[in-house]
Amino acid sequence: MLSKSQISFIKSLHQKKFRKEHRLFIVEGIKSVTEFIHSDYLVNSVYCTENVMPKLAKLPQKIKLNQITSTELGKISTLTTPQNILALVELPDDNEIETLSFKKRFTLALDGVQDPGNLGTIIRTADWFGLEQIICSEDCVEAYNPKVVQATMGSLSRMKIRYGDLSSLLKYSDVPVFGAMLNGTSITTIDFGTEGIIVLGNEGNGVSEAVANKISHRVTIPGLGKAESLNVAVSASLFCYELKRNILK
Amino acid sequence: MLSKSQISFIKSLHQKKFRKEHRLFIVEGIKSVTEFIHSDYLVNSVYCTENVMPKLAKLPQKIKLNQITSTELGKISTLTTPQNILALVELPDDNEIETLSFKKRFTLALDGVQDPGNLGTIIRTADWFGLEQIICSEDCVEAYNPKVVQATMGSLSRMKIRYGDLSSLLKYSDVPVFGAMLNGTSITTIDFGTEGIIVLGNEGNGVSEAVANKISHRVTIPGLGKAESLNVAVSASLFCYELKRNILK
Repeated sequence: MLSKSQISFIKSLHQKKFRKEHRLFIVEGIKSVTEFIHSDYLVNSVYCTENVMPKLAKLPQKIKLNQITSTELGKISTLTTPQNILALVELPDDNEIETLSFKKRFTLALDGVQDPGNLGTIIRTADWFGLEQIICSEDCVEAYNPKVVQATMGSLSRMKIRYGDLSSLLKYSDVPVFGAMLNGTSITTIDFGTEGIIVLGNEGNGVSEAVANKISHRVTIPGLGKAESLNVAVSASLFCYELKRNILK
Repeated sequence: MLSKSQISFIKSLHQKKFRKEHRLFIVEGIKSVTEFIHSDYLVNSVYCTENVMPKLAKLPQKIKLNQITSTELGKISTLTTPQNILALVELPDDNEIETLSFKKRFTLALDGVQDPGNLGTIIRTADWFGLEQIICSEDCVEAYNPKVVQATMGSLSRMKIRYGDLSSLLKYSDVPVFGAMLNGTSITTIDFGTEGIIVLGNEGNGVSEAVANKISHRVTIPGLGKAESLNVAVSASLFCYELKRNILK
């Protein structure tokens, strides 16, 4: 049973302002919730219908488990078609880009990516290809936006995402900074080596000038047709694939 | 000036049923509308605000050009943020899969792709890599759905899209039928040759059994992380890229 104030509290987390204030975000669906439970994230509480309860038998002690009806779930869900489980997860404390290491690995850097579906798909694909961290400019869509969380299909639970000033960070980068841009070396021929940061820009305007100035290697995905551009999640996916292509089996 | 009946007629085209009945669909934005005007599609009429008129100076004779206000455009638009031009375009007459040729080219075959954004992104990416035709099962989302049209960013104007029974069609295929599936040959090592059909399945359930039975080469995109699957538009993009990787410069 959910009280009116519980419903209004959870519904407030549909909005960024209140996620920030309460340091909580919403995860829905049994697969995603289970993955968050087994991740480094702290799951604060779980709301689910009776039929899902058995699947949560071996929960770590701390999580508050609340059995509710489908109708109640419908009231707090962010989804058009609510699933039968919703969790409140704590926003990570460590938000500093500076605590990340960029050596001996590849990191995506997103400069002004606006669409939640794009960010979600980028996180999911980066996870598929074994990347572990993504840095985002302050004006990127928030990774804890329900639409982003949903589109990651659980991969958000495994990805380190940090927000900050890309331009300042890249200025002192100790690894190569590749950028997805027009008029660069073809992605099919460039040697990415074993470490680096891959910058991808905004859906409409590409990489901002301040960030573009910090790019050491411009890389292009060549086209054969008449399309003017690729979707940013598609570009990111092709980069993730090409970075790891030699070790994929 | 738009009459009430004009507004209600155009708004009816937001729905599949009326698009089918009137054989018309909606395209919005100056880039997309211009690309449709210069394509094989027949543009029936254009509605735009005064400031866009000069950009349409050299229109082919037949198109009815209507100057309207932003407020009027808002009433007929399918977009949350309406652009300043909207066109009604005729649905193509030739809908037969059988009239397509599959020799000496690659064709995507989509089996039950449901999400408009995914289909739109697939069309855009296929166009980028120079593919020219896509066949869809009858239960795929309609390519003339406004969200699909929008996501293609004009590429729909250059792509042949046909709907039909994939299973029957693939049964008599005279080119290799590749399928994006689990447990296949790695996409990095398979030789696609110079022609073939690439089958991609539904977002949740993958390729249907009837269609899977017609696949001659199972192909897998190997992963390195813990994600369970890739978004279908990402998978399609990686296939389009890999098909053309050797000739990209």
